[in-house]
Amino acid sequence: MALLVEKTSSGREYKVKDMSQADFGRLEIELAEVEMPGLMSCRAEFGPSQPFKGARISGSLHMTIQTAVLIETLTALGAEVRWCSCNIFSTQDHAAAAIARDSAAVFAWKGETLQEYWWCTERCLDWGAGGGPDLIVDDGGDATLLIHEGVKAEEEFEKTGKLPDPNSTDNAEFQIVLGLIRDSLKVDPHRYRKMKERLVGVSEETTTGVKRLYQMQANGTLLFPAINVNDAVTKSKFDNLYGCRHSLPDGLMRATDVMIAGKVAVVCGYGDVGKGCAAALKQAGARVMVTEIDPICALQALMEGIPVLTLEDVLSEADIFVTTTGNKDIIMVDHMKKMKNNAIVCNIGHFDNEIDMLGLETYPGIQRTTIKPQTDRWVFPDTKNGVIILAEGRLMNLGCATGHPSFVMSCSFTNQVIAQLELWKERATGKYKKEVYVLPKHLDEKVASLHLEKLGAKLTKLTPEQAAYISVPVEGPYKPLHYRY
Amino acid sequence: MALLVEKTSSGREYKVKDMSQADFGRLEIELAEVEMPGLMSCRAEFGPSQPFKGARISGSLHMTIQTAVLIETLTALGAEVRWCSCNIFSTQDHAAAAIARDSAAVFAWKGETLQEYWWCTERCLDWGAGGGPDLIVDDGGDATLLIHEGVKAEEEFEKTGKLPDPNSTDNAEFQIVLGLIRDSLKVDPHRYRKMKERLVGVSEETTTGVKRLYQMQANGTLLFPAINVNDAVTKSKFDNLYGCRHSLPDGLMRATDVMIAGKVAVVCGYGDVGKGCAAALKQAGARVMVTEIDPICALQALMEGIPVLTLEDVLSEADIFVTTTGNKDIIMVDHMKKMKNNAIVCNIGHFDNEIDMLGLETYPGIQRTTIKPQTDRWVFPDTKNGVIILAEGRLMNLGCATGHPSFVMSCSFTNQVIAQLELWKERATGKYKKEVYVLPKHLDEKVASLHLEKLGAKLTKLTPEQAAYISVPVEGPYKPLHYRY
Amino acid sequence: MALLVEKTSSGREYKVKDMSQADFGRLEIELAEVEMPGLMSCRAEFGPSQPFKGARISGSLHMTIQTAVLIETLTALGAEVRWCSCNIFSTQDHAAAAIARDSAAVFAWKGETLQEYWWCTERCLDWGAGGGPDLIVDDGGDATLLIHEGVKAEEEFEKTGKLPDPNSTDNAEFQIVLGLIRDSLKVDPHRYRKMKERLVGVSEETTTGVKRLYQMQANGTLLFPAINVNDAVTKSKFDNLYGCRHSLPDGLMRATDVMIAGKVAVVCGYGDVGKGCAAALKQAGARVMVTEIDPICALQALMEGIPVLTLEDVLSEADIFVTTTGNKDIIMVDHMKKMKNNAIVCNIGHFDNEIDMLGLETYPGIQRTTIKPQTDRWVFPDTKNGVIILAEGRLMNLGCATGHPSFVMSCSFTNQVIAQLELWKERATGKYKKEVYVLPKHLDEKVASLHLEKLGAKLTKLTPEQAAYISVPVEGPYKPLHYRY
Amino acid sequence: MALLVEKTSSGREYKVKDMSQADFGRLEIELAEVEMPGLMSCRAEFGPSQPFKGARISGSLHMTIQTAVLIETLTALGAEVRWCSCNIFSTQDHAAAAIARDSAAVFAWKGETLQEYWWCTERCLDWGAGGGPDLIVDDGGDATLLIHEGVKAEEEFEKTGKLPDPNSTDNAEFQIVLGLIRDSLKVDPHRYRKMKERLVGVSEETTTGVKRLYQMQANGTLLFPAINVNDAVTKSKFDNLYGCRHSLPDGLMRATDVMIAGKVAVVCGYGDVGKGCAAALKQAGARVMVTEIDPICALQALMEGIPVLTLEDVLSEADIFVTTTGNKDIIMVDHMKKMKNNAIVCNIGHFDNEIDMLGLETYPGIQRTTIKPQTDRWVFPDTKNGVIILAEGRLMNLGCATGHPSFVMSCSFTNQVIAQLELWKERATGKYKKEVYVLPKHLDEKVASLHLEKLGAKLTKLTPEQAAYISVPVEGPYKPLHYRY
Repeated sequence: MALLVEKTSSGREYKVKDMSQADFGRLEIELAEVEMPGLMSCRAEFGPSQPFKGARISGSLHMTIQTAVLIETLTALGAEVRWCSCNIFSTQDHAAAAIARDSAAVFAWKGETLQEYWWCTERCLDWGAGGGPDLIVDDGGDATLLIHEGVKAEEEFEKTGKLPDPNSTDNAEFQIVLGLIRDSLKVDPHRYRKMKERLVGVSEETTTGVKRLYQMQANGTLLFPAINVNDAVTKSKFDNLYGCRHSLPDGLMRATDVMIAGKVAVVCGYGDVGKGCAAALKQAGARVMVTEIDPICALQALMEGIPVLTLEDVLSEADIFVTTTGNKDIIMVDHMKKMKNNAIVCNIGHFDNEIDMLGLETYPGIQRTTIKPQTDRWVFPDTKNGVIILAEGRLMNLGCATGHPSFVMSCSFTNQVIAQLELWKERATGKYKKEVYVLPKHLDEKVASLHLEKLGAKLTKLTPEQAAYISVPVEGPYKPLHYRY
Repeated sequence: MALLVEKTSSGREYKVKDMSQADFGRLEIELAEVEMPGLMSCRAEFGPSQPFKGARISGSLHMTIQTAVLIETLTALGAEVRWCSCNIFSTQDHAAAAIARDSAAVFAWKGETLQEYWWCTERCLDWGAGGGPDLIVDDGGDATLLIHEGVKAEEEFEKTGKLPDPNSTDNAEFQIVLGLIRDSLKVDPHRYRKMKERLVGVSEETTTGVKRLYQMQANGTLLFPAINVNDAVTKSKFDNLYGCRHSLPDGLMRATDVMIAGKVAVVCGYGDVGKGCAAALKQAGARVMVTEIDPICALQALMEGIPVLTLEDVLSEADIFVTTTGNKDIIMVDHMKKMKNNAIVCNIGHFDNEIDMLGLETYPGIQRTTIKPQTDRWVFPDTKNGVIILAEGRLMNLGCATGHPSFVMSCSFTNQVIAQLELWKERATGKYKKEVYVLPKHLDEKVASLHLEKLGAKLTKLTPEQAAYISVPVEGPYKPLHYRY
Repeated sequence: MALLVEKTSSGREYKVKDMSQADFGRLEIELAEVEMPGLMSCRAEFGPSQPFKGARISGSLHMTIQTAVLIETLTALGAEVRWCSCNIFSTQDHAAAAIARDSAAVFAWKGETLQEYWWCTERCLDWGAGGGPDLIVDDGGDATLLIHEGVKAEEEFEKTGKLPDPNSTDNAEFQIVLGLIRDSLKVDPHRYRKMKERLVGVSEETTTGVKRLYQMQANGTLLFPAINVNDAVTKSKFDNLYGCRHSLPDGLMRATDVMIAGKVAVVCGYGDVGKGCAAALKQAGARVMVTEIDPICALQALMEGIPVLTLEDVLSEADIFVTTTGNKDIIMVDHMKKMKNNAIVCNIGHFDNEIDMLGLETYPGIQRTTIKPQTDRWVFPDTKNGVIILAEGRLMNLGCATGHPSFVMSCSFTNQVIAQLELWKERATGKYKKEVYVLPKHLDEKVASLHLEKLGAKLTKLTPEQAAYISVPVEGPYKPLHYRY
Repeated sequence: MALLVEKTSSGREYKVKDMSQADFGRLEIELAEVEMPGLMSCRAEFGPSQPFKGARISGSLHMTIQTAVLIETLTALGAEVRWCSCNIFSTQDHAAAAIARDSAAVFAWKGETLQEYWWCTERCLDWGAGGGPDLIVDDGGDATLLIHEGVKAEEEFEKTGKLPDPNSTDNAEFQIVLGLIRDSLKVDPHRYRKMKERLVGVSEETTTGVKRLYQMQANGTLLFPAINVNDAVTKSKFDNLYGCRHSLPDGLMRATDVMIAGKVAVVCGYGDVGKGCAAALKQAGARVMVTEIDPICALQALMEGIPVLTLEDVLSEADIFVTTTGNKDIIMVDHMKKMKNNAIVCNIGHFDNEIDMLGLETYPGIQRTTIKPQTDRWVFPDTKNGVIILAEGRLMNLGCATGHPSFVMSCSFTNQVIAQLELWKERATGKYKKEVYVLPKHLDEKVASLHLEKLGAKLTKLTPEQAAYISVPVEGPYKPLHYRY
């Protein structure tokens, strides 16, 4: 795809796969709105006062139908928005088209190359002469990373005159990032620093991005305030758990049509995502096994009747392997060559380094057959056994299906809206330092509240006497901070 | 689509959507073979002796990847095969293309009109000058119906000179059938009777077709022997139950991406199919309710914690409605107009008369929006509420997804192969009269056996003393005929 | 316990553990009545016409609270009743006391010796000078067996003058039976033949007893008509399945207080009882494995995510073993000595020959410690490992807990009442030969109907058009005979 | 029961129900040891160094078999121990007898009056002339409460000469506490203050007790350091959740034998305890409904397919009611009189004020029938409907069954041992102030580790590279403090 920015008749920039899918996207967006009561409540509550008036928001987050409803909630509250996906396979092209046509600048399509991916990220942050965004919605932290790396390189360049060198790293993706920054530096050696100056803060969506933020906070290198949306209860205990419980089997079915019942499935990692995956597989009739490093999570699996073993123990027995760890080097090529013929190997963690794709690609004599996009069979020359790799090792639920369903994303994204509102409201008060924050519990409870009526639920009200007895306000919050749900 | 028969380079007839999808179909067929141990065992066991040598088999059964493996098992055993789908939406076009190119005459594509559907059925039965098939594989009984109606019309015509009159019925589909027979009669007034003479028998796949056969047996109108494959344990208690448990959520997700967790779902009918659907929905986190006419099935639902109510009781509360009854007029337009906005209404029973599509289509002022193929939103003019109808009221798992997965279809289709072998082997012995038969239990047990190793199972062997104690042969069959599993 | 028959003030015979528990028994009977709508409906429907007027009914069936409600239903319909338990551990002494005091002649207590057990059975059949019962309610077939063996011995004696010789068998229990008959023969050499003459028929409760009846039918030795209650759908698919799902964990908990979650549990046999047990253990968080001889049942287990292995495969890994086969010699002493320390071994099948108790008792140097009644630890001398045996290998749910709960027994026992009514009504019509019968489907459906309202269920009614379409009467029965539910 | 302290032959004080049950208790203790690997590991690891040498530990915690293993772990590590139950119904008399005979001073029996209960608590804290304990193991905080109230009263008395007045409160139980302190004051006006001086700290077992401690910390009235064991992950996410999942149905079955399948069950509160209860009921085949005040917990229930309603909504429909809130006044007499006949009402929260027992007892004309101990039927005079109350509104799993099983209590109690060790080790270092602490995560992970091998689990080890990548030590702890599991 030629990397040229296009413009709508109204002059808004975009780059999407196929603008003719905009109508289809709009229809699905309208269906999704009915399933996203939290976001629609935000529009109703905050829309009239236009709190984002004058705010520029850049988002790097899977450009799906659900994200479209998020974007149009931000614009309904007055923001100007630019958007890119945070994964090369996660864009839904009809969603991208509808948003590009109707609401915001979008740079995203399903099946980007890594080069294209980072070009999109750069476009998303590029608000023209006036510099960068006021706020960032990030998922996995790539937008945040680009700014931090950009600032670091500019400072280094100012001090030493040294440009970033893509050859200084083995990591193919980081080479692209360095190249991008190098090229930018040549044009404007203050670009990322100006961006940083303007930036009010970032709200981060996922475990992986949050980990990066806490590391930067610990190192003292974090350049702007960050709100950790991931660890809102209504995010991590819903989207990560129930979202994956829904979208893992969805991805498996769309990619392979395999019968899950009767199969042996291994879930690597039993955190929130792993718990959702294991539950889904078990309920579908698989025998599930878990690998874990953490004895507490391991004991949780055991209490649910799920054995905890090492990957080596189960290699030859399992039919389906899912990585959910957020760590790297989980399933290596040496593991894969010991698997049964047509074992399915996939990842539902944020990054693509859980499965050793490089090892697979460079295995001597290996043969790859693409069954259909995002479903490949890799055959080992010695055994003639194949493994089926989904989404090239990337997030299989977004690569092979449509990701989490609208209702649970409404929880996550309502947290995003609230986080963005909070950062913007407090932009001049100094309330937020260059640190990582979580949303206060009463907002977490509010997000949950907004999703109850749609499901027909009725809450019980505390009497003042009962509230006093357990020492909480009648209106909440109801739990101590350390409460685990 | 112009209804012209095409021919492969080898002269085999076909009519499919897109022959260029044959390679893709072949790849998925190869994956499916690994998941269908029963059929592959049949090839290994019977292939060398070519038992179907000289047999013509016509099949009317969803032209999917799994059916492709069935067809190629029949041809591997020596048969010549012609095929059509038994549902206008159930064909997978890449499967049809691969089979048409490589193995058998196929007349099927996804999205046939009813006119096209019956043209395909007629082609499937049309073996040219030499007449009809020796054997039929039927699903729902449409091929069987066509022959029976044809014979009846020919006899009537011979007696009275009266041609069938499409206007004699209100049923749009039956009008087409009568028209087809009328046209055939004009060309050859003995066609269907010659077909009947040649026919050795039919093996029927599903509850609905079996019901028709037993009615014909009761009426004394059945024209040839029939084997009821549906009521093999390894069919009805597997495909109907576990197949639907898999493919119902698959269809829901592909069609609507709706989050099932938290929703209220109503399953009409709690037979094998309904049990599978209810289990799937419950496991996905829905609150499930069931409607039933049969007090025993109702009590089973209750024992699983599922309330049994009437449709009227739950209309305004439910988000998802699924019909599984095999009966007609289950969800009427008057029901639908009382539903919540965007309630999903779908059918997983064989025929399309469980949901009142005619009532919906003819509702004054109703507006239909096609979100995507097989997913329509119908908006009532008065309330502005819409219902989402899947697959136009036809089998949603085949219309919106890919039907049952390979492994469970291997059970069903191994029964089909065994039934066809049995009919063919006994074609001259008079063993089978013009009646409906079920396969003997030891064959049922054999089908199960063929599927155990793939799942890593090990059976226990009876000692002779134990076998004597419970009065069964060491090698089985192990259960009395009335055993319910 | 001295084997002397006692009498109530009204002159009714009995032998129970402790008459002072009658009040407690009465309170629990009253609670159970609320949970047994089928039986209470029978009282309401049939009580006024006293259909059992003049009928003598002997019952050999676990003398529990639920059975008490059955007995008092029979007496409410006009019968005279004598009762014994069909298992040495299954009597609830307070139930026995209440019935003995208030309603019927009872000979039963928890913890009978085998000698006592058969004495009770004999008393139950002994209606004094006037001979035997008109009807038998049997569970496992011991009452039926005694009569058949008695008749055989009397005929042999008449022909040859030979008395039965207890030393002719190794089976300790059968020695007692022969001794009993020998002693009876000396007193009255026509006793059992007179009993047979009077007997209208038997209704049999359980799989094991039914198997015996079909064997006798096959051999031509069945002496009177039998109704197979076990294979009513509302019995075998409810009591066997849902009853065991309830009472297996109940028995485990009361006997051992062991945490089921996290444990490895092996269920031998995956019939209705095994399915209930496996479901209960899985739901409680155990990892469940199944052993099976039947490939169909094995495949069912696999579809539920339960591996199928041989006992040898899992001996060293499992914590809990349950036999449910209805066969003999399932867990032998050689198996037990390879188990983990404190592995729990128990049986929920009808007879006590599934677990090799004899092998255990006679293992050289083995040491038995009774933790509490029905919970014993047997320590092997070599390994010092112990196995925990429940209820001495007999039905653990009745030995260690209180058996199946009232609601599900109401289904089973309503079938019993209906079967008894049918036999009695047709006693003079010759409708029932010396064969085994099942109840017609409309009565099965009626039993289910009687249990719906209590659970708040509402059935849907067929329209006449719908009924015609599926060829069933509007009022049922709704399913063909071969339907499996 | 006459409140006289007895003495063993070795001079150790005790007061238990029946010393002849000591052998039975010992047998069950030995079984439990096999199920409590965490405690047995503590004995192996710490026993040789006798870290508790010289320490006096007083425990107020259900005197069950599991607690017996805890006590003997404390004594195996060198402690001297005195013990009482923290609930009038929760003692297992055979456990109390065995401990009293063999290991520690015990004052506890099943079915204490409130007067007896507090006498036992006082005895437990009374180490004779030398004053009080060094350490307290508390459950619910009654021992802690008594000391705090004692100190308060002594200070008040010293200042004003005023004795505590039982009539100053309506609360019957608190009247007893005040009476006790008043009597103590007369004997020794420094007793509780001396106790406080000696006290190193308390470790608290349960949510309710922890709430009290945090309130005292907030008020500044906490008199000694406290470790919050409840909020160890390996306590609250195991014992509260999986313990209740096990013991709720156990209690229901032992108390009522009711069939859970098919019933409508209402769980008030969906915290850890409520989640365990709801899971158990659902799995047993009940239709479960939840009441909640907290929108987040409510949304969790909905995601599991459990409707959230108010108690009023479900009063007339439900068969079983369980309170798990930790709050008061949940089910009032006005609720109860609207329930179905024989609705079961029970509490599994710590205190007995969730169910309005006072309202029930004082309802005009109400009639109570004790079916058996801890199972009462209360009949309302107007409707003649009864409700079945378990354990007089107290913890039904301990009152009607035997509480949580050994394995999960091993997790909880290993935390107790570690907490006690920590308090004792740091008694002179000033590490712990008069505040509430939770155990550090690495100890939490250690507790989990100690329970894996018993269940056959194998952990995966991080490579140093992986550990670095996710910024954790190879040996853990693996999660941030805010992680929710």
